[in-house]
Amino acid sequence: MCSAGTEKNEERYVHATNPHLEYMKEDFLYHFNLGTATHDLPAMFGDVKFVCVGGSPWRMKEFIKYIAGELGLVSPDGEYPNLCEETDRYAMYKIGPVLSVSHGIGVPSMSVMMHELIKLLQYAQCSDIIVVRLGTSGGIGLKPGTVVVTKQAVDTMFRPQFEQRILGKPVVRGTELDADLADELLECGKEHSEFETIIGNTMCTMDFYEGQARLDGAFCSYTEEDKQKYLDSAYTTGVRNIEMESTVFAAMCKLSNIRAAVLCVTVLDRLKGDQVTIPRDVFKRFEQRPQNLMGNYIKKKLLSYQKM
Amino acid sequence: MCSAGTEKNEERYVHATNPHLEYMKEDFLYHFNLGTATHDLPAMFGDVKFVCVGGSPWRMKEFIKYIAGELGLVSPDGEYPNLCEETDRYAMYKIGPVLSVSHGIGVPSMSVMMHELIKLLQYAQCSDIIVVRLGTSGGIGLKPGTVVVTKQAVDTMFRPQFEQRILGKPVVRGTELDADLADELLECGKEHSEFETIIGNTMCTMDFYEGQARLDGAFCSYTEEDKQKYLDSAYTTGVRNIEMESTVFAAMCKLSNIRAAVLCVTVLDRLKGDQVTIPRDVFKRFEQRPQNLMGNYIKKKLLSYQKM
Repeated sequence: MCSAGTEKNEERYVHATNPHLEYMKEDFLYHFNLGTATHDLPAMFGDVKFVCVGGSPWRMKEFIKYIAGELGLVSPDGEYPNLCEETDRYAMYKIGPVLSVSHGIGVPSMSVMMHELIKLLQYAQCSDIIVVRLGTSGGIGLKPGTVVVTKQAVDTMFRPQFEQRILGKPVVRGTELDADLADELLECGKEHSEFETIIGNTMCTMDFYEGQARLDGAFCSYTEEDKQKYLDSAYTTGVRNIEMESTVFAAMCKLSNIRAAVLCVTVLDRLKGDQVTIPRDVFKRFEQRPQNLMGNYIKKKLLSYQKM
Repeated sequence: MCSAGTEKNEERYVHATNPHLEYMKEDFLYHFNLGTATHDLPAMFGDVKFVCVGGSPWRMKEFIKYIAGELGLVSPDGEYPNLCEETDRYAMYKIGPVLSVSHGIGVPSMSVMMHELIKLLQYAQCSDIIVVRLGTSGGIGLKPGTVVVTKQAVDTMFRPQFEQRILGKPVVRGTELDADLADELLECGKEHSEFETIIGNTMCTMDFYEGQARLDGAFCSYTEEDKQKYLDSAYTTGVRNIEMESTVFAAMCKLSNIRAAVLCVTVLDRLKGDQVTIPRDVFKRFEQRPQNLMGNYIKKKLLSYQKM
């Protein structure tokens, strides 16, 4: 049975460090269509302990249905309402202590969602939160269908950092994830005999085609040999998969005192090709794997809370 | 009556410059769930002349319904099917010569969509295409509700360029848009008496909060004075609005020989605040303005084709 980690006695609160927030009479979380003046955020979200985020709104709804089943909290009417009403920028679902939020594709889309999520969790006075990104990715040297627990989220030069522009100037932030949480998830993953779970670095890019050295985008100014060399270098530095959100996700969780992890399944081996051509049913089975692993982890963790 | 521009006799084709495409037996456009082996792309899309792209899938569906009405092409069953079946990454709708596609939030999300759109238009052998981004934005020194036709798409240092990483190395691309098209759209906008249309530079950022000098994100390491100075500098260089996709959109259209424009309505004046607090009904009226302007343009353009 996989461990649920060591518990500490002191509660760990989410911390949105912006000093200006204190002086705001109200805060409207524009892309969630939720606000401090219009919604009772502590009542709605105060009991959240696990936040799972993923690119696709549909997948995040499927996840909440799955978790509801696993935790015996199935909605009597079978309905799981989207808490971000009247906006389709992001979708948000909740069941018991689990919140499931979509983040779209890429760093900026993740960043906007995370700013609002971090503030929401702080306003709701949530403590001891774990936030996990569940996603799909391109693998490097791995059998498609393998789940990768991210050790370090790295940029396109394989550095564990995230660079952004603030007031037009570059600001670099660290992307360290919670090593204990990664180990716990890896251990949970090993309980699933139907797929392999490994730990490795995850490269985050700003584009799916040229940014990931694909040869099948609308533009391509490099050769197959250049591509191969680049992916080989990535592998040598410990990169095992490539996706588009992990660095900013890790940096923002770290800054706000949130324990975070990234769990992505690989849907192809980039050393062997660029196109994602697995049949739809295989793809659907693969994309459930990070969700199943996370479901396993949440159940174990809740059990350990009950025993305390 | 606004002009529909000068026609040239030679057809202008979309050009995905990637030399590797020629050697691919088939191409599966993963995020659209459309492919050259599974779909007859010339039959489905060969007649497209106007492509409108925007962040929200819902808004792009509303746009196709609106255009259908304007062009007298209303679907008999009132249904406008999403052509990107079984995926919720992007949504795509078509009526007559108009294609409407969502691109999500931010540069990477736009970039992935554009790679696949450019290839799709090339495979469909489309010619004389116009692609316009219809969006919302924060204004600088403008009355909320103003529509801005982008003159230059600039980065956070106010330069008309887009920098991306390819094989880990920086590559800088120009972001020139079609000046004639911008003028034609500006002229069309002036026919709408219920809102103002202006031309100005559009700044594209990688984040909605810190990236746009907001004081209400989860993090903020600068003062209100720093913010004001930065926005003032932007204004001085000609920036009139801020959004999150224009530079990569402009760069990719330019590279593929597509005439392109950006039309965004402003939903607040950033010199006066950070929060988007206009009532929902006002917001909905504002977000229709770029669509109405574009509808006006498409009608004029189609009329001018008939007269030729």
